[in-house]
Amino acid sequence: MSVYTQVTQAELSDWLGNYSVGALASFEPIAAGIENSNYFVTTSQGRYVLTLFERLPAAELPFYLQLMAHLARHGIPCPAPIADLSDQFLQQLKGKPAALVTRLAGRSIENPEKPHCAELGALLGRLHLAGRSYPAYLENPRGPKWWRMAFQDLKRFLKKKELDLLESELAFQAQHRFPDLPRGPVHADLFRDNALFEEGRISGVIDFYFAGVDCLLFDVAVCVNDWCLVDPARDRRLDETRTRSLLGAYHAVRPFTAPEREAWPAMLRAAALRFWLSRLHDFHLPRPGMLVHAHDPEHFRQVLESRIENAGGVPAPLPV
Amino acid sequence: MSVYTQVTQAELSDWLGNYSVGALASFEPIAAGIENSNYFVTTSQGRYVLTLFERLPAAELPFYLQLMAHLARHGIPCPAPIADLSDQFLQQLKGKPAALVTRLAGRSIENPEKPHCAELGALLGRLHLAGRSYPAYLENPRGPKWWRMAFQDLKRFLKKKELDLLESELAFQAQHRFPDLPRGPVHADLFRDNALFEEGRISGVIDFYFAGVDCLLFDVAVCVNDWCLVDPARDRRLDETRTRSLLGAYHAVRPFTAPEREAWPAMLRAAALRFWLSRLHDFHLPRPGMLVHAHDPEHFRQVLESRIENAGGVPAPLPV
Repeated sequence: MSVYTQVTQAELSDWLGNYSVGALASFEPIAAGIENSNYFVTTSQGRYVLTLFERLPAAELPFYLQLMAHLARHGIPCPAPIADLSDQFLQQLKGKPAALVTRLAGRSIENPEKPHCAELGALLGRLHLAGRSYPAYLENPRGPKWWRMAFQDLKRFLKKKELDLLESELAFQAQHRFPDLPRGPVHADLFRDNALFEEGRISGVIDFYFAGVDCLLFDVAVCVNDWCLVDPARDRRLDETRTRSLLGAYHAVRPFTAPEREAWPAMLRAAALRFWLSRLHDFHLPRPGMLVHAHDPEHFRQVLESRIENAGGVPAPLPV
Repeated sequence: MSVYTQVTQAELSDWLGNYSVGALASFEPIAAGIENSNYFVTTSQGRYVLTLFERLPAAELPFYLQLMAHLARHGIPCPAPIADLSDQFLQQLKGKPAALVTRLAGRSIENPEKPHCAELGALLGRLHLAGRSYPAYLENPRGPKWWRMAFQDLKRFLKKKELDLLESELAFQAQHRFPDLPRGPVHADLFRDNALFEEGRISGVIDFYFAGVDCLLFDVAVCVNDWCLVDPARDRRLDETRTRSLLGAYHAVRPFTAPEREAWPAMLRAAALRFWLSRLHDFHLPRPGMLVHAHDPEHFRQVLESRIENAGGVPAPLPV
């Protein structure tokens, strides 16, 4: 079982008395997830996900929960936090901060085709539009400040070749900041496994616990770097058809600006750098008690190198 | 077509640009409903109901919309208002106040059985628990004050027998007010056609535009008077099995208090009186432009008489 905190049937049943969601019918731990303990919970009312927050700073939790509530009430298919009887989203269970959110239908898609990429692009555009009226602020916790910190922590573990690439990319990014790009809440981790599909339509976006305020274009770059690779296991170049499909659908909802078009090649590199760094960090400096094997950092080194090589002529520039 | 305000495809398509719900796919007017104009709206994102408010005072609309939003975020399956890009639930369309809400799955059940009544009772209990943290206040617009006004308006249309019954019941109710009963937001119109079921489970409660703050027990009485009749067309006595099923399921969620048990027979009469009065009013004093035939008031006269006859020994007293 890959949850940090075990909950019994009796404890959960009692705890649900804080809500108006009916009686506990069944529950099961969710294997995925490295930051929190998660359970599927079914009651006489419906299907939910229970999250016990193991690591996130308590002060940041309202940003995530209120963001999900905000997006849900704008019609974005994301987990909607359930308020308890005293009208709070954040509860306690087994001494941990805990929240109950709606469970969305659908399954993630490992090999997205062109129409899936269009669905994702349109949804991301809508999410960004809806997010712009969200008033709270939390800096993207995996932004440039964190990159530099992580790099210092990692130095002693890295080979010369990795060190050189990281150093030169950090220098490049420091010279390519884009203060004039449209900003707002971004998901910042919208990989294929965080989107659910049902009958070919996107039915859910999940796992907002890396969200923060950043350039909207950063979110687009994170998606493209995961959804649009020629072959995620062997060829990290961008597939032109799927990339154009994702970008075109996004553009139809929220048109890209001229500064965004200019920033695009550097932003693709920034998004690759961010995940290469975090995977190196999880690999060389795993947190105590971490239950899930770290992803291989090598994948994102190759994504970054591919973006650098193609920087002058990415196969799919932003549409005009 | 039984909507007051016609909307074209082009107007609706434009108007949806105020939201982050994707592009219009299709829409159709909803025949039911006598207070507002309603449309089913399908977009690339999901299924919604558009309501143009024709008659409700604009000042009261936030009470209804915020109540639905409050209940939805507590897990109650009710229409959830969708916020527009400036984060408002209330919009304008064709010069009318308008709102977009989620469309719930399921169908209403004309002849509920015992398990349906239990589902309804439990849901109503959860709705009342969730509603108690709702901070806004609107007096039940069809409460005792309105009864007396409606009675004055109706006097000249009524036969002696109706007049006498109304007068004596109004006098009885004036002597039986219950200031100590638990109060909160009540739906106040939860008839069979305002509840949706899917695979035997309650999947939605709709039409909150008669909601207000009142005794919670009033809501229970409204439901019992509609869901639990021996035969709605011929025999308005309460069916004991279904009544006990509804009340038992409610009681398991929100236990009835001793004062509520005492008030129950009078409350059943109050709920019958309220609908007899409003149906008489719609029948004798139809509003200009009213598109739907008024219900026969006679039904609720008979419900009231049956509750008076059985007042001393209702077949299903509130459970202890």
